[in-house]
Amino acid sequence: MSHTVKEIAVALGAEAFGATDILVTRAAEPAQAQADHLALATSPKYAESLPQGAARVAMLWEGADWQALGLEAAIIAPRPRFAMASLTRLLDAGQGYTDGIHPTAFVDPDAQLGEGVSVGPLAVISKGAIIGAGSVIGPQCFIGWHARLGEGAYLREAVSIGARVTIGARFIAQPGARIGGDGFSFVTPEPSSVESVRKTLGDQGETQAQDWARIHSLGAVTIGDDVEIGMGATIDCGTIRDTVIGDGTKLDNQVHMGHNVVIGRNCLICGQVGIAGSATIGDNVVLAGQCGVNDNIFVGDGVIAGGGTKLMSNVPAGRTMLGYPATQMDKQVEGYKALRRLPRLMRDVAELKRMVFKTTPDA
Amino acid sequence: MSHTVKEIAVALGAEAFGATDILVTRAAEPAQAQADHLALATSPKYAESLPQGAARVAMLWEGADWQALGLEAAIIAPRPRFAMASLTRLLDAGQGYTDGIHPTAFVDPDAQLGEGVSVGPLAVISKGAIIGAGSVIGPQCFIGWHARLGEGAYLREAVSIGARVTIGARFIAQPGARIGGDGFSFVTPEPSSVESVRKTLGDQGETQAQDWARIHSLGAVTIGDDVEIGMGATIDCGTIRDTVIGDGTKLDNQVHMGHNVVIGRNCLICGQVGIAGSATIGDNVVLAGQCGVNDNIFVGDGVIAGGGTKLMSNVPAGRTMLGYPATQMDKQVEGYKALRRLPRLMRDVAELKRMVFKTTPDA
Amino acid sequence: MSHTVKEIAVALGAEAFGATDILVTRAAEPAQAQADHLALATSPKYAESLPQGAARVAMLWEGADWQALGLEAAIIAPRPRFAMASLTRLLDAGQGYTDGIHPTAFVDPDAQLGEGVSVGPLAVISKGAIIGAGSVIGPQCFIGWHARLGEGAYLREAVSIGARVTIGARFIAQPGARIGGDGFSFVTPEPSSVESVRKTLGDQGETQAQDWARIHSLGAVTIGDDVEIGMGATIDCGTIRDTVIGDGTKLDNQVHMGHNVVIGRNCLICGQVGIAGSATIGDNVVLAGQCGVNDNIFVGDGVIAGGGTKLMSNVPAGRTMLGYPATQMDKQVEGYKALRRLPRLMRDVAELKRMVFKTTPDA
Repeated sequence: MSHTVKEIAVALGAEAFGATDILVTRAAEPAQAQADHLALATSPKYAESLPQGAARVAMLWEGADWQALGLEAAIIAPRPRFAMASLTRLLDAGQGYTDGIHPTAFVDPDAQLGEGVSVGPLAVISKGAIIGAGSVIGPQCFIGWHARLGEGAYLREAVSIGARVTIGARFIAQPGARIGGDGFSFVTPEPSSVESVRKTLGDQGETQAQDWARIHSLGAVTIGDDVEIGMGATIDCGTIRDTVIGDGTKLDNQVHMGHNVVIGRNCLICGQVGIAGSATIGDNVVLAGQCGVNDNIFVGDGVIAGGGTKLMSNVPAGRTMLGYPATQMDKQVEGYKALRRLPRLMRDVAELKRMVFKTTPDA
Repeated sequence: MSHTVKEIAVALGAEAFGATDILVTRAAEPAQAQADHLALATSPKYAESLPQGAARVAMLWEGADWQALGLEAAIIAPRPRFAMASLTRLLDAGQGYTDGIHPTAFVDPDAQLGEGVSVGPLAVISKGAIIGAGSVIGPQCFIGWHARLGEGAYLREAVSIGARVTIGARFIAQPGARIGGDGFSFVTPEPSSVESVRKTLGDQGETQAQDWARIHSLGAVTIGDDVEIGMGATIDCGTIRDTVIGDGTKLDNQVHMGHNVVIGRNCLICGQVGIAGSATIGDNVVLAGQCGVNDNIFVGDGVIAGGGTKLMSNVPAGRTMLGYPATQMDKQVEGYKALRRLPRLMRDVAELKRMVFKTTPDA
Repeated sequence: MSHTVKEIAVALGAEAFGATDILVTRAAEPAQAQADHLALATSPKYAESLPQGAARVAMLWEGADWQALGLEAAIIAPRPRFAMASLTRLLDAGQGYTDGIHPTAFVDPDAQLGEGVSVGPLAVISKGAIIGAGSVIGPQCFIGWHARLGEGAYLREAVSIGARVTIGARFIAQPGARIGGDGFSFVTPEPSSVESVRKTLGDQGETQAQDWARIHSLGAVTIGDDVEIGMGATIDCGTIRDTVIGDGTKLDNQVHMGHNVVIGRNCLICGQVGIAGSATIGDNVVLAGQCGVNDNIFVGDGVIAGGGTKLMSNVPAGRTMLGYPATQMDKQVEGYKALRRLPRLMRDVAELKRMVFKTTPDA
């Protein structure tokens, strides 16, 4: 799968210079680049290690002097970070999944597969499922009863999708993503200690230990277009209506979305984030790794939360948040600094007390 | 799967009013309810959106005036939240798994299946496994060597259960739950830096880097009756004896239970909670999402911990905990408030110093 | 699978005393030990419960008086914790996987299997994959296109390994471990609010909402010798070069390793740790449960981090860290203590203000 420098530049909407008919087999970091690789040296700092490799061609930053770097050809993209999207799509060698329906797959005769759908070895497609044209159902995937996938889905190995889940076009799921388990919803015959603690912020009251009765999930999951779900991520069904993920939203590995959660468009939800039941997340929200979102709260459009942030109450649109419990990022940073100065503050206060009250210091 | 209003009320132990022979096909939120749906309007606030839908029948709170709400029939339950358990069980359409043993499943001839057990496509049941009567083994599940499941188990797709695991009656496992991996237990020939840090709370001492030797798990996992395990949850085997989960305890998605953990009865362990090796958890404990429990500690009966709480040392029974490191919830909330007032406190102390010591302020 | 006391002692490099020809069928905790068990009573405290069981043989600490404990035989190891590695390896009954290639497995004719490789039921081995001699590929595993596994790999059920992943000798993977998903890497046409926040630590600037373009992962994952990966752990591919795990490193359940991460030799990465993209971890690093590592930072050799620690910036070699945000452990502990004394400090300052400024207290 070789490409000329010129072909690559065209695909990237970038400019090509020098010997643009050189064939490139793959991209590489500058130090590891061999003679038939495209070195990615998109800043002067990255370009420093070009001499350690054998690259003849590189992708460079705007204004770079490719000849001075000793290259035979170069691609210059105005925003190299964005050009990476087109470049990596062009050069992706894929997973080598084969076309057609593998003889070891089990496809229910009452499932509907669109044109050009491929189904990998030992995958299961259940009765009433509808798979959009051009979709790839990877090895050992499971598609449940009356689940629907739009056109151009790409499911890696061992993905499972439960009954009645509805998914839009161009869906991508990484290995072992799980959609459509039952929500975690249990109730006691009499009000429980948890209900008491929520009301009083700490007091369990006179509640007695009781058995938990299970609330089944009657809703499913509805997912928009252009959504991607990471490895081991888990999306619960809604209790009465569906749990919802909006168009263009991406979930990283091991993200957990509880029942009834509604998440908007174009959000980035990073690794190991947990969103508890019935939380509502707006559009263009970015939650960094290991964030948590409390149940039943809302997080407004455009909120950004740093790594490990626990959002415990509603967050207005546009806020940048950090910490546990979360506050606005600048306040949190101020708090960390103050905490670090606290031992000194204590010594100051002790000295003040000695001066003012004429006391002798404690042992 | 339609039910009359009267049938539903009987199943819920609730009262029905009006045209109780109306047929209902499913439950719905008030605003989305169609003419053949049962609207769930269990508080005056929820009832406000009834006019946005087309419901003729609703489940209402005690004392509600169903006729004034323009309904043709109503169900009134004394504790509507608890009635949801019976209601959702009645209306659950299920996953559409078929009866019997699917021809693509592999069931070892030396496995014992009770009466009425169904096994989904491409599931594996190993030699010596015993499956209780009426159990459902979902598609692509794996039941290991000499594993035992009680009556009425319900395993969704892609669940795996390792060798010698023992599980009680009415077990429920959501997709991709994993039971019976080896514990994470490694040891060095000479005492390691970790052992030194544990003793000194910080000092690594003179320890040298060493290779890790693996301690195998000889124990398995023992699970009581009426336990449920969420999607992607992982339960490790014990080292010498079994890891244990008591009757009625529920684990949410992506919960991690290390080796030798013992957890009591009727606990709720929410999403992404991690319980480290050899911790002991009492009965009726509730750990909210993303909590952590240190290894080798105990958490007493009835403890409740808020979201993200990290329990670093033993917790007496009945405590309500919050924070990292965890303290009792009221102390933690007091600490958060104090931290927020810290910048003002620092200004106060600076001013006091100026007054008392007649110093000039720092730059 | 019985062993004489003498055989066990030889395997452990330990000394045996008394009736060393007694046959032992398994190890047990002292209180549960039956007559044909080896009780593990490796400290005087554990030995106290020997009378509750029926053990005739025990593994004891150095200097223990086995006859005074009423035993018929004993094994004494100089470092009993280390002896557990050999003992549990000897007594491990395993998973009962059968030899050979199961008839329900799908092995591509262009895959290469070394001598003595076993492949479990419903496993898939793809075209171009190379499996080292003596490896065990468990039930329902997936080995991708041109993936390579060294000699003596042991994969439990439902493990998946993506295309082009390279793994060294003696690899162990617990159920549902996932290696080789695409990295979580998205970019906007114009600089995004996240890029702005990273620069300003909080200010989203004038950025507009934009769609995310996907950066494909062209790299794979390279794993050294003697590595173990836990249940539900997920390892992403690198963007241009491979994500890397060094020799002897062990990952616990539900660990998340982002794209381009490089982790060194002999690290212990405990349950639910998340390592964000392009972080670099040295050798002999120990991260306790639920730690987080920020993207693009480095963590030096020998760093140890306590449970729940979030490493937000570079950590020099040899540090012992704790907290969110992480500091050195002793500073963090000092900070916690100071925080607990803060309410008293506030009262002190209020009193000082009254004395110094002659003010009356606030309401």
